[in-house]
Amino acid sequence: MKIEIVKNILEANDQVALLNRETFNNLNVFTVNVMASPGAGKTSLILEAIPRLNSSVAVIEGDVASSIDSEKVARFNIPVVQINTGGNCHLDASMIREAIKKLSLEGIRYLFIENIGNLICPASFDLGEHIRIVISSVPEGDDKPYKYPGLFSTVDAVILNKIDLLPYVDFNIEYFKNGITAINKKAKIFPVSCKTDEGIDSWVEWLKGENRYK
Amino acid sequence: MKIEIVKNILEANDQVALLNRETFNNLNVFTVNVMASPGAGKTSLILEAIPRLNSSVAVIEGDVASSIDSEKVARFNIPVVQINTGGNCHLDASMIREAIKKLSLEGIRYLFIENIGNLICPASFDLGEHIRIVISSVPEGDDKPYKYPGLFSTVDAVILNKIDLLPYVDFNIEYFKNGITAINKKAKIFPVSCKTDEGIDSWVEWLKGENRYK
Repeated sequence: MKIEIVKNILEANDQVALLNRETFNNLNVFTVNVMASPGAGKTSLILEAIPRLNSSVAVIEGDVASSIDSEKVARFNIPVVQINTGGNCHLDASMIREAIKKLSLEGIRYLFIENIGNLICPASFDLGEHIRIVISSVPEGDDKPYKYPGLFSTVDAVILNKIDLLPYVDFNIEYFKNGITAINKKAKIFPVSCKTDEGIDSWVEWLKGENRYK
Repeated sequence: MKIEIVKNILEANDQVALLNRETFNNLNVFTVNVMASPGAGKTSLILEAIPRLNSSVAVIEGDVASSIDSEKVARFNIPVVQINTGGNCHLDASMIREAIKKLSLEGIRYLFIENIGNLICPASFDLGEHIRIVISSVPEGDDKPYKYPGLFSTVDAVILNKIDLLPYVDFNIEYFKNGITAINKKAKIFPVSCKTDEGIDSWVEWLKGENRYK
């Protein structure tokens, strides 16, 4: 009975996600679903990408509460919509459908959707995005792909952020990478630091290459 | 309609939590619900406490997948039960009810319940614990109490872990503390490092003081 309800919710979500994807396709807006733990660096990574894309960018900021992140993004003078989910631990396609009504997507080439800080539920909800990435940060530990296979198995790229902290924490990068390739052969892995900018150019170049509308 | 369902689920959970608390009270088992983001240091903090408590300890390990953490705890030769929730992003009282059937709680004085790595949903589910703590780690950033007020407002203590990383990241400890006291006047705040052991003794002493059964 419980499983039936969950199945219905996910099917309804997929229908709306399909509509969202159609909207993005019609307007040539390449859309990226950004997922991560709290504090892994979702906003920082988006802020690093914006000036490097040389293109029109919009952002949808998901958070349980507060507008701290959307205020940071708004300083770049780009369109941004904040979704506060209240108690909800993930974004769903209907929330995105509402948010894009408030965004002028005409002429936008990249739309980043910053999901809720959570490595579990966001994995199950298609938002209509073209690619999904997860950011995992060095201080969180090298076991995250083993502990959260549901999310790591669905992404197109894993961004390993805060590599500037590698000298100060125990982190085996081979163990981390092996955990990803065991469940997801296609995922690209980009070690980066939003603090020192190391590796940022590589992942932005990859993102540009993935954009079918550029 | 949706709200009604959530309300029913939470009411049913509270009934079972009441039974759990009765079991713990009858057996004089002081029970601690440990919540945090993925990789904030839940297992490490529990492992630091075990040898300092000079008392019989048991652990319930919650995880979406894997038994990495319960294997670490089992090395201490103490009773440990692993709950793998599959896709579920929080523990609930019924899972704990099942888990304690597999634990021999006779003579146990401290039971740690390591919740799922998530700062959102665990806040809503009473497990029957006596106290609840959240671990927030320095690299996650100083804005966590502002972004996750639902959880930070319900805890008895906030453990700020990984203070050994303070020299390498931007973290304003006053801003962090103000975010907590604005929504939770009673919460104690313990800055610690599970790596250098700094501050660990203070929080374990506090824990001993809170234990009404010692």
